[in-house]
Amino acid sequence: MDDEKSYSVDKIAPQPTIRRIPSYLRILYEYQAEGNQWISATDIAERLSLKPIQVRKDMSFTGITGKPKKGFLIQDLITSIRNFLGWTRASDAVIVGTGALGSALLGYKSFSHQGLNIVAAFDKDPDRVGKTIRGMKVLSMEELPELVSRMHVRIGIITVPSEAAQEVADVLVSAGIEGIWNFSPTKLKTPSSVVVQKEDLCSGLAVLSVKMGARHSNGEDGRD
Amino acid sequence: MDDEKSYSVDKIAPQPTIRRIPSYLRILYEYQAEGNQWISATDIAERLSLKPIQVRKDMSFTGITGKPKKGFLIQDLITSIRNFLGWTRASDAVIVGTGALGSALLGYKSFSHQGLNIVAAFDKDPDRVGKTIRGMKVLSMEELPELVSRMHVRIGIITVPSEAAQEVADVLVSAGIEGIWNFSPTKLKTPSSVVVQKEDLCSGLAVLSVKMGARHSNGEDGRD
Repeated sequence: MDDEKSYSVDKIAPQPTIRRIPSYLRILYEYQAEGNQWISATDIAERLSLKPIQVRKDMSFTGITGKPKKGFLIQDLITSIRNFLGWTRASDAVIVGTGALGSALLGYKSFSHQGLNIVAAFDKDPDRVGKTIRGMKVLSMEELPELVSRMHVRIGIITVPSEAAQEVADVLVSAGIEGIWNFSPTKLKTPSSVVVQKEDLCSGLAVLSVKMGARHSNGEDGRD
Repeated sequence: MDDEKSYSVDKIAPQPTIRRIPSYLRILYEYQAEGNQWISATDIAERLSLKPIQVRKDMSFTGITGKPKKGFLIQDLITSIRNFLGWTRASDAVIVGTGALGSALLGYKSFSHQGLNIVAAFDKDPDRVGKTIRGMKVLSMEELPELVSRMHVRIGIITVPSEAAQEVADVLVSAGIEGIWNFSPTKLKTPSSVVVQKEDLCSGLAVLSVKMGARHSNGEDGRD
């Protein structure tokens, strides 16, 4: 997931910090829904089993500092995080590939709270075009350029098999997409004006494995 | 994805390093399949659009050092990486929840190359039990404890809705699972002997958003 020029964002904040921030946002919404106005770094840390110092450090990258003894005003913190992530308004996205993974992403409820608004789904398989998946009608690839351009869609999500990924990326780029979220293992060739984020589910598996290995070799619990 | 005591693995290697390693392994298999015996950090870096120094640094955590002018013997590097990740033999896993995401993971081909062997799928929905998804028969939750214990399954993958995740985690823990890969947004309560890796798809989205924002505000391409 981090293998495409990951050093770029490190100028803004360390990647583990950026990766943790959506979970902070989730906790803030929960806390707010429970009727709270204030939250402390310790509260957040407890809910996520992190160290408070880690939470404070992460928060500092979003440009907010808490008040002694009170913590953060939840609404300010939400605004600050959403500004940091550029999630002040939802980014429209299209998804290409409506197989198992594409369908799963179409149904992923968290996206709508987190700045992503999937406006259309495309597939080149004639058997899938016209079908409705999770309330969304699957469109043909031929309809992609016009829709992306008309709706000013910024993000393309690629969930096609590896061998089809480059072709899809080319279509998305020609259509004017600014960012590609690539779930295929293919390393895409794109112009430098397009941001590519590669998602590799095996990354999480690697972290799990190393944690389990560490627990075994240390006789520790591998979580601390 | 990194929000569960992520500082623990940092003693072994930085998390971004661990997260990049599966993509290295993929490149190594590709290179080997093309008939090569040696690979340089520069070769790997080029295929993944990383800096060679980053690749060398990452590799050093796996305990291998290249030969000047020749690079790494591919087979040695594969062995070294697999040892580092504990992927010397595949870990057996069960998956609980056969909705869209569970089905997608059942069909994720990369897992078999990467140390994960999904041996069974479970669901509590009677409409799903007995059906075959991607060649695997869905079993009822009642069958889980006996199967996990008999097959010494080490990893449980949770792809159930948020509200059911804790109950599933409890069943997995009682059955003797050592590691949980949690795809639900729920923060699980588990004994300290069980390693939990939380997977949050919004983490990758956050990195994409920050990269796109950086490109805009700097007038740069956001990838360098």
